[in-house]
Amino acid sequence: MQDKFNIQKHVNMALEEDLPFGDITTDSLTHEDEELTYYLNTRVDGIFCGKDVFETVFKTLDEKIEIKFFKKDGDKITKGEKIAEIRGNARAILKGERTALNYVQRMSGIATETRKYADKLENYKARISDTRKTTPNFRYFEKYAVQAGGGTVHRFNLSDCVMIKDNHIIAAGSLTTAVERVKKVISHTHKIEVECDNLNQVKEAVNCGVDIILLDNMDYETMTEAVKIIDNKAISEASGNVKYENLEEIAKTGVDIISTSAIVAGAKTLDLGLDID
Amino acid sequence: MQDKFNIQKHVNMALEEDLPFGDITTDSLTHEDEELTYYLNTRVDGIFCGKDVFETVFKTLDEKIEIKFFKKDGDKITKGEKIAEIRGNARAILKGERTALNYVQRMSGIATETRKYADKLENYKARISDTRKTTPNFRYFEKYAVQAGGGTVHRFNLSDCVMIKDNHIIAAGSLTTAVERVKKVISHTHKIEVECDNLNQVKEAVNCGVDIILLDNMDYETMTEAVKIIDNKAISEASGNVKYENLEEIAKTGVDIISTSAIVAGAKTLDLGLDID
Amino acid sequence: MQDKFNIQKHVNMALEEDLPFGDITTDSLTHEDEELTYYLNTRVDGIFCGKDVFETVFKTLDEKIEIKFFKKDGDKITKGEKIAEIRGNARAILKGERTALNYVQRMSGIATETRKYADKLENYKARISDTRKTTPNFRYFEKYAVQAGGGTVHRFNLSDCVMIKDNHIIAAGSLTTAVERVKKVISHTHKIEVECDNLNQVKEAVNCGVDIILLDNMDYETMTEAVKIIDNKAISEASGNVKYENLEEIAKTGVDIISTSAIVAGAKTLDLGLDID
Amino acid sequence: MQDKFNIQKHVNMALEEDLPFGDITTDSLTHEDEELTYYLNTRVDGIFCGKDVFETVFKTLDEKIEIKFFKKDGDKITKGEKIAEIRGNARAILKGERTALNYVQRMSGIATETRKYADKLENYKARISDTRKTTPNFRYFEKYAVQAGGGTVHRFNLSDCVMIKDNHIIAAGSLTTAVERVKKVISHTHKIEVECDNLNQVKEAVNCGVDIILLDNMDYETMTEAVKIIDNKAISEASGNVKYENLEEIAKTGVDIISTSAIVAGAKTLDLGLDID
Amino acid sequence: MQDKFNIQKHVNMALEEDLPFGDITTDSLTHEDEELTYYLNTRVDGIFCGKDVFETVFKTLDEKIEIKFFKKDGDKITKGEKIAEIRGNARAILKGERTALNYVQRMSGIATETRKYADKLENYKARISDTRKTTPNFRYFEKYAVQAGGGTVHRFNLSDCVMIKDNHIIAAGSLTTAVERVKKVISHTHKIEVECDNLNQVKEAVNCGVDIILLDNMDYETMTEAVKIIDNKAISEASGNVKYENLEEIAKTGVDIISTSAIVAGAKTLDLGLDID
Amino acid sequence: MQDKFNIQKHVNMALEEDLPFGDITTDSLTHEDEELTYYLNTRVDGIFCGKDVFETVFKTLDEKIEIKFFKKDGDKITKGEKIAEIRGNARAILKGERTALNYVQRMSGIATETRKYADKLENYKARISDTRKTTPNFRYFEKYAVQAGGGTVHRFNLSDCVMIKDNHIIAAGSLTTAVERVKKVISHTHKIEVECDNLNQVKEAVNCGVDIILLDNMDYETMTEAVKIIDNKAISEASGNVKYENLEEIAKTGVDIISTSAIVAGAKTLDLGLDID
Repeated sequence: MQDKFNIQKHVNMALEEDLPFGDITTDSLTHEDEELTYYLNTRVDGIFCGKDVFETVFKTLDEKIEIKFFKKDGDKITKGEKIAEIRGNARAILKGERTALNYVQRMSGIATETRKYADKLENYKARISDTRKTTPNFRYFEKYAVQAGGGTVHRFNLSDCVMIKDNHIIAAGSLTTAVERVKKVISHTHKIEVECDNLNQVKEAVNCGVDIILLDNMDYETMTEAVKIIDNKAISEASGNVKYENLEEIAKTGVDIISTSAIVAGAKTLDLGLDID
Repeated sequence: MQDKFNIQKHVNMALEEDLPFGDITTDSLTHEDEELTYYLNTRVDGIFCGKDVFETVFKTLDEKIEIKFFKKDGDKITKGEKIAEIRGNARAILKGERTALNYVQRMSGIATETRKYADKLENYKARISDTRKTTPNFRYFEKYAVQAGGGTVHRFNLSDCVMIKDNHIIAAGSLTTAVERVKKVISHTHKIEVECDNLNQVKEAVNCGVDIILLDNMDYETMTEAVKIIDNKAISEASGNVKYENLEEIAKTGVDIISTSAIVAGAKTLDLGLDID
Repeated sequence: MQDKFNIQKHVNMALEEDLPFGDITTDSLTHEDEELTYYLNTRVDGIFCGKDVFETVFKTLDEKIEIKFFKKDGDKITKGEKIAEIRGNARAILKGERTALNYVQRMSGIATETRKYADKLENYKARISDTRKTTPNFRYFEKYAVQAGGGTVHRFNLSDCVMIKDNHIIAAGSLTTAVERVKKVISHTHKIEVECDNLNQVKEAVNCGVDIILLDNMDYETMTEAVKIIDNKAISEASGNVKYENLEEIAKTGVDIISTSAIVAGAKTLDLGLDID
Repeated sequence: MQDKFNIQKHVNMALEEDLPFGDITTDSLTHEDEELTYYLNTRVDGIFCGKDVFETVFKTLDEKIEIKFFKKDGDKITKGEKIAEIRGNARAILKGERTALNYVQRMSGIATETRKYADKLENYKARISDTRKTTPNFRYFEKYAVQAGGGTVHRFNLSDCVMIKDNHIIAAGSLTTAVERVKKVISHTHKIEVECDNLNQVKEAVNCGVDIILLDNMDYETMTEAVKIIDNKAISEASGNVKYENLEEIAKTGVDIISTSAIVAGAKTLDLGLDID
Repeated sequence: MQDKFNIQKHVNMALEEDLPFGDITTDSLTHEDEELTYYLNTRVDGIFCGKDVFETVFKTLDEKIEIKFFKKDGDKITKGEKIAEIRGNARAILKGERTALNYVQRMSGIATETRKYADKLENYKARISDTRKTTPNFRYFEKYAVQAGGGTVHRFNLSDCVMIKDNHIIAAGSLTTAVERVKKVISHTHKIEVECDNLNQVKEAVNCGVDIILLDNMDYETMTEAVKIIDNKAISEASGNVKYENLEEIAKTGVDIISTSAIVAGAKTLDLGLDID
Repeated sequence: MQDKFNIQKHVNMALEEDLPFGDITTDSLTHEDEELTYYLNTRVDGIFCGKDVFETVFKTLDEKIEIKFFKKDGDKITKGEKIAEIRGNARAILKGERTALNYVQRMSGIATETRKYADKLENYKARISDTRKTTPNFRYFEKYAVQAGGGTVHRFNLSDCVMIKDNHIIAAGSLTTAVERVKKVISHTHKIEVECDNLNQVKEAVNCGVDIILLDNMDYETMTEAVKIIDNKAISEASGNVKYENLEEIAKTGVDIISTSAIVAGAKTLDLGLDID
């Protein structure tokens, strides 16, 4: 479930984007009180996502439109299946069609891609996670879709988790100094993650008590060693060169998290459409 | 060139999305007056796009940051090439890095994909065009990227061009009635496009003087026939089942425009990054 | 019908403008649960316009207010006639009164002025059209009122139709070059209009296949000639020095469109008021 | 002088209204670094108003544009005179032209109309004032223009001055009770105005110590009597049926203020334009 | 009663502030259709304030939540008393809890502090008033709370009342000149207040007919003298060094208004909480 | 340092709140090009905070105003000391004065109060922290002030840290079940805090590996015991009934964090003012 007030803010802007001066086709060709029943169908197999925003688009155009969902976020959908019934004022439905589809197609695409990765990791401890490589002003929907697809999410933004990288370490003098400095100023409610390139850094990170250790672009052997060194004293996260193809190899190293932008940036929109029965 | 005021509105929201309470890593580990020089590099071949918004992200964080571009929107970039130099306050640069990259990676990805299609059509009359299947609240950047990649764009929104579809025709009684009704109410500055499934509809559309005829999901033979019937009395647009693979087959039918959501929704983000020299 | 979400955005700002800290008179002198029935009456003859925004103003202040309309947008109203009944919370009605009237008085004024022009053109092919000379941040309501008054509208904004003027032609070298350049970059869904001062320009414009030819400040004879040259290969639009008085003279030249800012900028607010029965 | 932050908010929205996806003509036909010098000229006599917002429109599009004003708000301008020189990027100037003109034409129109009224009252005590009958979301500019034209302004909104009308008096039982009730709750920094239809009400209003007495639709004789009764114990304001023609007759009654919506709602836009020298 | 549209604007932002990406605790641990009944209780004695905004917070999260109030704004509440019952969706209630409390705790704190001052002045003419020393972007709620607590409010903002201070007088040459200058340009609907430090200034202010005279930091004797000089020809306002302790001493001077930032800036949040029965 | 774009958004709204239609006093009495030099002085001892927002208020009104700071955020200031020099356009400075002071007075008040608490804890491990009991739409400034005063901050919002309370535990069946459920869905980058009332809960919380344990309203003895049980396997946080007076008693229990709303909600505005030298 996403928060209504947050969805509404985005939907208002999206409708302005698509209807600055109305829909000149629909306003000309439909009667003000014409009614319509549409079905949201899927033309392919996948995972559905975007129920709340789909509904909000139409309700914003006409609050009397009624939508019945046969699926909820995260549900499997099979080619040809009905996902929802939309019933109400024809003008409003036609005006909202494209915007509503643009949301659910993109969100379902991400959920579907994420599930593919999550399924492959089913028998491993590792969970699939996204990154901050998202579409500007659309992250709220992308991260939600990752969760609907069975993934976990990485930090929402630069304010809610520390991530210490190479240049921070260089600037601070050492990884330990960097971590100590951060601990002095940040909230005790926020975690510290450190990006490590080699096993020495991993050892140092474990010793200074960080919460998450990012194993960056390590080969499987080194990564396996790193996981052993970490020994559950921190969360281990594999990153860099993650592909659907090598997912299990990475998982076998024993890492807790595998993070990749592929499940968001690499996801295709899912082919959904609105039809008359 | 994109309009500054329009970019600024989007960038402010994108920065709020990523920095609601600052960047807790950077605010802890860099000095307020530290300086930095970064280079925007490409790790792959492609087409660059997003110069203005890239600059606006950083200037919004610190107006004194200086950016020198070695490439402009639409330029070819080759793996390893420098695209821009960013010089200034380290905090501001680190805070803007991800947001700025999220813009140019997505925009350059679209420009690159579009160029691929445009190049394939080089020896044909047909031009490649996008659709309204865009990311909500990101269309301004996606359509611009299509143009930077050598494509033309379809209508911006529901207010600036009429598109008469099947159900409009059914509702109006006939294609001709629908067109006549629309002509009576819309601005004379707006075009009328009609979606046609068969040659009879194409003939009817030509006869009632529409501006654009969408040839929807026709086989190549029918499409060739349709183009002959249209005989430059309207713009012909091929749509439905457009793939990079069949682009030339479609172009050979003689259509003016080939429109597809693939160049936007199907584009991958381009692998660009910020590095120290 | 105007789109609710678009109206709402404007109404929220208009109410903030008039009620930053409440209505200190009404808040002091009416009881929280007092009820009131008001009628929207016209003190003069004219055309009514602004139904949706009128309703939205009151509903925004109290969603339980009930409004019954006896007229719809574009309807003739005669001095003394009731247009609507507003029933509900007295505070909300009194607070919204002025803002609601400011909308309908201005919109009805424009609709009334437009109808006057449209009526005079009844027996001619020519239709009356507005321009982009509108009140900033009020265009959505002004253009709608022109349509309600029986006029057509010109382009909504600088993004939805090309208008090539003198200085563009000079810059490009020739009218033909200017048109060719534009055609290469704009969307095929947008029209091209060219402003012509003389018959040579008209001929050139026809030859390069533009959509609309603006006949700028021509005398009736030249204009008649221009219409013949155009010969329905483009839409002809008369502009410059258009007055209610010379409307028929212009129409007699055979032009398709007569555009003037007079129907918007020159319209007076229509004298409507809220009264107890 | 108007406040920059307040102007900026309106200008951003006005530019969005006119340029949602750029200026497709100018973006196609001018070079990115082309320069232009334009002059703001007047084609008629009048009073100029709108300096700050005119400048802000162009500076928002390109901060390097330079504007030199030869006139300031409230100055007389004579047909053919230059008001300002605008020098800078051609694209930005062409994109801002219409929006900038829409502001100054409407504001100068109001200033001009107001001056006409103010001049006629030159030898009388009475000053001309506007009302709250303004264009929604444009009041900040309209009221400023009234001041530039030599008028005074009425209350800005429902929060900054009490106005007790007939139905308030009926609801409260008596004028005196209404005033007493209001005095108990409003800020001591706000004035109380009472609308009076007859001399008895005027007497009662004077007795209970109100700040302003609105003489509503009184004939000149009654009004003269009312002014005597008021005897400077309150400000007297004439309202209702105010026309340019009867201004002096009203002024002769000795009232302090004559308020009318005519100087705003009845003002025509002033014919100003941008030209190359 | 506060205006719904104005409250809504603030509440939307406040919820965004607290829930940028949902409530990760509640979203994880409660079921989507779980119901809850909560009571707003007071842990201390005081004055309640904030009914409308409290309700709006919850209704914004779920419009089906039902709230029954046992108290209204300005009512006395006693330790342990129930103020309201909130019944509905558990997620929505838990998400809104802190934001809703933050509003009513701060508003009730101000109302309580104001009542303390107002009660002490019960037997005096003087009324307690606030200042413009408020929390940025929260003034709408703070001034309302002052009124709910039985105080009067000072001007809302810099636009609705003139306040002439020392440096204005020096700049203008004399108090009289300053007042005359102001009278020429401001609306007749706005009052003029002058800050006076000594009795000569008070005399001058009375003579030039100002509306309010601020007696700034005067000792009780001088203030008593000033009130006599003013003799109800203007409103007298005491300011500077106002404390709860010396309130009666100031009131005994006969002033009309005692203004202090203490009732807003000095107020503590009132200890209210949400509990299960 | 606070982020400029974030400050700017708040400042724009705050100026609108205080200057909807200009400053009618200053606009009447100062010349457009008058210059002024003001000093920000402190009338009491304390900690200064609010440098960036103070500057932004004035720069928003006139970008040419120059501000020199003699103190930075977190610095001690002593009664009579100059904090900053503001030099520039008189109108702009006078218009911004109150808004700028409202920010720094409230922020410095919080920083001062926080320092008082932090200083008392100087010789203890425990650090002072705030809560989410902040002023709606002002949290960005309040939390920053806590940091400037030497405090740490608690979570920014409901999205960036889990906080499991009594009713969550009841709903889930047990503390352990609740924690397990949460761990399955939240981001691995977010911490989990659990509110414990007794030592059994503390043991259970330690066992299921939570990040922070809130010791709620425990007596010192129990708290000391709890800290021993936790044994640095989680962060211990004391909360409930925290006062300046009992701070050391709490610290002596060995807790890591003492959190209280008193440093924000209980802070008084610091007496700062603008003066001519």
